[in-house]
Amino acid sequence: MTQIIQAKRGNITREMKVVAKDEKVPVAEIVKNLIDGTIIILGNKKHEGVIPVGIGKGLRTKVNANIGTSGDEVSMKGEIKKLKTAMKAGADVIMDLSTGGDINKIRRKILEKCFLPVGTVPVYQSAVEAVKKKKALVNMEKDDIFSVIEEQLSEGVDFVTVHCGLTRDTLERVKNEGRITNIVSRGGAFLVEWMIFRDKENPFYEDYDRLLEIAKKHDAVLSLGDGMRPGCIGDSTDRGQVQELVLLGELAQRALEAGVQVMIEGPGHIPIHEIQANMLLEKSLCHGAPFYVLGPIVTDIAPGYDHITSAIGGAIAAANGADFLCYVTPSEHLRLPTEDDVREGVIAARIAAHAGDIAKGIPGAVEKDIELSKMRELRKWNKQLKLAIDPVKARSYRRRSLPRERDVCTMCGEYCAIKKVETFFRKHKS
Amino acid sequence: MTQIIQAKRGNITREMKVVAKDEKVPVAEIVKNLIDGTIIILGNKKHEGVIPVGIGKGLRTKVNANIGTSGDEVSMKGEIKKLKTAMKAGADVIMDLSTGGDINKIRRKILEKCFLPVGTVPVYQSAVEAVKKKKALVNMEKDDIFSVIEEQLSEGVDFVTVHCGLTRDTLERVKNEGRITNIVSRGGAFLVEWMIFRDKENPFYEDYDRLLEIAKKHDAVLSLGDGMRPGCIGDSTDRGQVQELVLLGELAQRALEAGVQVMIEGPGHIPIHEIQANMLLEKSLCHGAPFYVLGPIVTDIAPGYDHITSAIGGAIAAANGADFLCYVTPSEHLRLPTEDDVREGVIAARIAAHAGDIAKGIPGAVEKDIELSKMRELRKWNKQLKLAIDPVKARSYRRRSLPRERDVCTMCGEYCAIKKVETFFRKHKS
Repeated sequence: MTQIIQAKRGNITREMKVVAKDEKVPVAEIVKNLIDGTIIILGNKKHEGVIPVGIGKGLRTKVNANIGTSGDEVSMKGEIKKLKTAMKAGADVIMDLSTGGDINKIRRKILEKCFLPVGTVPVYQSAVEAVKKKKALVNMEKDDIFSVIEEQLSEGVDFVTVHCGLTRDTLERVKNEGRITNIVSRGGAFLVEWMIFRDKENPFYEDYDRLLEIAKKHDAVLSLGDGMRPGCIGDSTDRGQVQELVLLGELAQRALEAGVQVMIEGPGHIPIHEIQANMLLEKSLCHGAPFYVLGPIVTDIAPGYDHITSAIGGAIAAANGADFLCYVTPSEHLRLPTEDDVREGVIAARIAAHAGDIAKGIPGAVEKDIELSKMRELRKWNKQLKLAIDPVKARSYRRRSLPRERDVCTMCGEYCAIKKVETFFRKHKS
Repeated sequence: MTQIIQAKRGNITREMKVVAKDEKVPVAEIVKNLIDGTIIILGNKKHEGVIPVGIGKGLRTKVNANIGTSGDEVSMKGEIKKLKTAMKAGADVIMDLSTGGDINKIRRKILEKCFLPVGTVPVYQSAVEAVKKKKALVNMEKDDIFSVIEEQLSEGVDFVTVHCGLTRDTLERVKNEGRITNIVSRGGAFLVEWMIFRDKENPFYEDYDRLLEIAKKHDAVLSLGDGMRPGCIGDSTDRGQVQELVLLGELAQRALEAGVQVMIEGPGHIPIHEIQANMLLEKSLCHGAPFYVLGPIVTDIAPGYDHITSAIGGAIAAANGADFLCYVTPSEHLRLPTEDDVREGVIAARIAAHAGDIAKGIPGAVEKDIELSKMRELRKWNKQLKLAIDPVKARSYRRRSLPRERDVCTMCGEYCAIKKVETFFRKHKS
């Protein structure tokens, strides 16, 4: 039985309790929001040792880190290192997007080593196997697609991205739109290639009930992917993107009715002034389903710094209702990320999520800032740095430039503003 | 004669022409906005070789980089290196905030080497000299303060920060407010120490007309500093901050009436949901005077990453009307920045400014994104990377991980989404 069905029957599951405790939210609220479809809980019972994670209304904004091989860079060891780095840096969820090497082996190793929920895009495996075994992606059969999903979920994958809304109709909408970057979603591109060559409808859309059955059986979460997400801000909020979202809203409702948990994936590249509208659009069209945004990146001109362009977009998105941020690393648009990129990406996304949570009024968020600021005012350096989002980096910065007077820093030295007025304010207080 | 007085007389100065050309804005608009006080032009005639820079309504959002020594870190060579790094990274304006070593010598060297407008906080020099020559900051005399300003402007400093609004009355407002971080402005702290010990009013406020006279004589811009800016998001938009802004609005109006150019300095630390209101408040209280924000930083918990926390805040601020962003480096709150920090800080602030300009609809902004995105879709790597905000970094990322097929990248390799669907969209187009 899925979390939704349990909730409807009034059963409080272990997963609901863990999330309620972790988020300091009454379990009754978790139950209600599961039934409404405004929150989901990731945590496949087959995924040994996984700590369930809640995503959605009233909960802390979560951060996902993508890892995984590509055909050009295949290293199991390297990916496991990235996994550990992402967990240590404080990611909430991991996605394995491997397309190179022995995909099954890599995924199983990641599931074994990862106590966070793990997501995948199963069509990657179906496509890569079709290329390897049948010489071309278009030789992939419908059954190949669904059997991979079944296999992955039965092995403990906690959620899967399925690009259900990229239908022939959606494609029709975008054909004449005049996009700058047509399709930038890998899963989306695979499906389009298949749909065009086979002259068929998107199997995830056509056989959506089959998908729901599989997800229901494993109580896995479906992440309805946005294959038509804009790949540059010039394409943002266009007909293709919105058409797909309209369909995803319908599909989310069908999932909820079937007792299957869903979230919606969103862009991508959006300029600042369109982010709020995009968040509203998703919440409205998808009846409050959790929104999982990939960035968004607010400008295209900064390859090498897309952890920053996406931290800007992610923070604004979270403040306006996004529930789950997919990190973007400095390597985005340039190469497969390194371990360092993974760390920088996770921290940048966590900063965005936290800044969003302060704006959202998530209990306990601003309290962290106040606690650190009190230590800053008192110039209690050890305590201040311990409270930092990355104490190791903060300490190393300070250590490499120590002031003569140890209670200040080398920015102002003896002229520290805080220290200068301390007596005045202390005198006044007493 | 100042730019405002020239504008009122209908004279088109060289500076107005340079700004109009640089910004692709009709010179008549520059003239009108100078008269209204909604734009300023930085460019002291005594600053040899300076390229005038316009800041304000309808113009590109500008970025300032702070450099300068402290008592703990004094290296003329180091600061000149930082200056060159900041200029190369694309800063629009430089501030020399030196408080260590031979301040006069350092400033003169910076003015000599810098083709960008240079700003200072003259009270730093007055205070440091009082400590050196008269044993204590409180022994600084009013004349010391004004003569330093006169000296600096006559040597070519393009604008000076003067904390005119931190009056005894402002201080009274904040005393009982219960701030977490009382005062974090160095100039503000100097003045408060002096005002309390001497039992006197802020000399910049009391003798504001004297300040206006000096500024008018040199056609220098006054940057009305925010000595009461919040030093943590818990103190944001409090009585102290707003009281000071109310007074700065009055002083800005007096400056405009006297024909003196002014901008307003703003916070600091502001949570995301308060940024828009803060921008509106400044524009309303200060009758549209250009707003120069120091960050803002949207969370206090990320020392070591404050170039990111401030890029988030700066982008939102710019999108909502801020005209000028002061960069924040990864070293903020921890130490005097290094050369690397300066580079990272400038690029992060430029990303924020550009993302803000797209939202503001500044002509030519989004066009840069579209141009790069077209090259990305065509997988013309050299052209794409050349258009990046930091081509050197972007190229080095790609170079360290080259794909087998040279027209893609190692993120997706042969499964590049853009490449996969290319034929379909091309076929459709033709």
